[in-house]
Amino acid sequence: MQFLTPTLTVNVSAIVANWQTLRAQFSGRETAAVVKADAYGLGMVEVAIALEKAGCHTFCVATLGEGISLRAALPDVRILVFHGVQEGEEFAFRQHRLVPALASRVQVERWKPVAVEFPHAVSALHVDTAMARLGLQMDEFTAWLAAEPELLKQCRVGLVMSHLACAPEPAHPSNAQQRDAMQQLRALVGEDMPMSLCNSGGIYLPRDFHFDLARPGCALYGIAPQDGGTNPMQQVAQWDAPIISTRVLERAQAVGYGATQTLPKGARMATVATGYADGYLRHASGRGAVGYVGEYRAPLVGRVTMDMLCFDVSGVPEALLGDGAMLTLLGDRDGIRVDDVAAAADTIGYEVLTRIGPRVRRIYI
Amino acid sequence: MQFLTPTLTVNVSAIVANWQTLRAQFSGRETAAVVKADAYGLGMVEVAIALEKAGCHTFCVATLGEGISLRAALPDVRILVFHGVQEGEEFAFRQHRLVPALASRVQVERWKPVAVEFPHAVSALHVDTAMARLGLQMDEFTAWLAAEPELLKQCRVGLVMSHLACAPEPAHPSNAQQRDAMQQLRALVGEDMPMSLCNSGGIYLPRDFHFDLARPGCALYGIAPQDGGTNPMQQVAQWDAPIISTRVLERAQAVGYGATQTLPKGARMATVATGYADGYLRHASGRGAVGYVGEYRAPLVGRVTMDMLCFDVSGVPEALLGDGAMLTLLGDRDGIRVDDVAAAADTIGYEVLTRIGPRVRRIYI
Repeated sequence: MQFLTPTLTVNVSAIVANWQTLRAQFSGRETAAVVKADAYGLGMVEVAIALEKAGCHTFCVATLGEGISLRAALPDVRILVFHGVQEGEEFAFRQHRLVPALASRVQVERWKPVAVEFPHAVSALHVDTAMARLGLQMDEFTAWLAAEPELLKQCRVGLVMSHLACAPEPAHPSNAQQRDAMQQLRALVGEDMPMSLCNSGGIYLPRDFHFDLARPGCALYGIAPQDGGTNPMQQVAQWDAPIISTRVLERAQAVGYGATQTLPKGARMATVATGYADGYLRHASGRGAVGYVGEYRAPLVGRVTMDMLCFDVSGVPEALLGDGAMLTLLGDRDGIRVDDVAAAADTIGYEVLTRIGPRVRRIYI
Repeated sequence: MQFLTPTLTVNVSAIVANWQTLRAQFSGRETAAVVKADAYGLGMVEVAIALEKAGCHTFCVATLGEGISLRAALPDVRILVFHGVQEGEEFAFRQHRLVPALASRVQVERWKPVAVEFPHAVSALHVDTAMARLGLQMDEFTAWLAAEPELLKQCRVGLVMSHLACAPEPAHPSNAQQRDAMQQLRALVGEDMPMSLCNSGGIYLPRDFHFDLARPGCALYGIAPQDGGTNPMQQVAQWDAPIISTRVLERAQAVGYGATQTLPKGARMATVATGYADGYLRHASGRGAVGYVGEYRAPLVGRVTMDMLCFDVSGVPEALLGDGAMLTLLGDRDGIRVDDVAAAADTIGYEVLTRIGPRVRRIYI
């Protein structure tokens, strides 16, 4: 028996269409797909299987655990693990044919004996060109390669990658610096070595940013790849929550914790069964977030609570508020697209998607 | 084989100790435990089993689904479901002996025929005394009871409850209004009807707020029940994340997305394998959040990203940063207690705990 619960309807076809849009935009050789963090909360295995059918061959995850789960579903694709290889993980990487993105000198040293011994122990090398987060530093890498010219071959490096820090802002000077650093790297590692710089935003930067392999994540899931302008991506996720109670206020009344907002007598309110425990960010409180009942817009009122949200449905026809009615929190309407919901919570769409919790039932279409 | 992953160590004994502290503070007859949202992210079944052994007999959840899961673990306790009963759920409530907190006129009407037919179909009645979120409104309830004096008996109501909107602020005028409303309710429903008003904060309000049953949630999990003053609760959760890379900066460099923060040449940075996809809130970026390696404090630098956080570990002895080193994000030290982590992300401890994600392995002690 299926009870009334919040649901997240994931349009896998739209994710595939977004991947095809990105592939058409990208001038390099291969367009991968980033499916880390459970495909940004939408379901790694379901998403990856659909993309593989559409022709995607390289998938990116963050952790070894994610790589192992994905390998169980897709035996033949290339799986790149961004966190690289930690001590004691070497055997698991080999066993599941996962490609570590070697992210530090220690990781490179760790992988070298594995790659020397096992011909299939292919790796990628992460060089840091701006973020200071992960990857060999430029001077470090340059000096090392000068001292050990066989380093890349010994580690069976099949890809040199870096990560854009400011790709959604085309005019940010960091972008050009990173492109230039990649060109220096190309001179160092040779024309034959595949290179990867672009995330979603990078694909919409000029062609000299593109290099060989693109690794889009956010845009697959409907997030705009660039700040401003029109979002070329389809929306892929719809989050609905059941209305568990409605009321017409007997008197003007403050709503919710802290009594932060007051509605007039006669206002009609709906309480829906989802909250910040399900990932509807508490920062959305009092910042103009909205939901929809059918085509009717309803403002969020009061603070976001753990398991419930309140909406002013005074403008919604009463016939739509009966038993089993659902309110849409995220979907393809003005004010509730993923970037809108993020803006209302003063964050980015990535955080909105990745934190939708396990009480929200996933439906795939 | 166990790989290096982020871990959440849950001290179940400390949760039990907090429940005992709350029970000692509460002057009413019974202290329940709120274990909704997977016991605020810490593990509903593990927490509830321990509390039941310590003598807790009533547990509160938000949804029918949570109630069914808890019933499978604890056959003999009383389980109260805050969202009440939705259409089509009546049979499941009976089958699993769950007590719906009837939250609207529609829900009361829905339950009445069930309770009339089945002697064990006990319910609670939620009356709204301030939040405007859930529960019958006072005037509505008063008029209804006058018209149908047998209403409570017909619905087999065993508890009349309401929820404090501003309990952490003892001086907030809403508190006294809610207490007075409860006293009016007591006059209406009779002295013999058990009543419940107090959440964690309410337990630390004067005794005339206490009534019969307390329903603490947040304080069980180490969150201060009242704003300001000393927190009488033990910390119960420790979140550690593996360091996957360290570096000494070759030059002064901006760290992370958007290049929002710059560290000097020579600074030592550690990158740890957890991020907002695991519930470390992105709003903690640039607001003074810290972590610890052993007893050494390390400031968070740059923006929180999906799968990684960067910390300035210049002040941490290098010997502590070797392979397998963990950095503590949440625990029992200054600056990383649950309320500290919440303050650094401009939210409340409830959201910090409930959003810790599935990639973070739970360990129970």
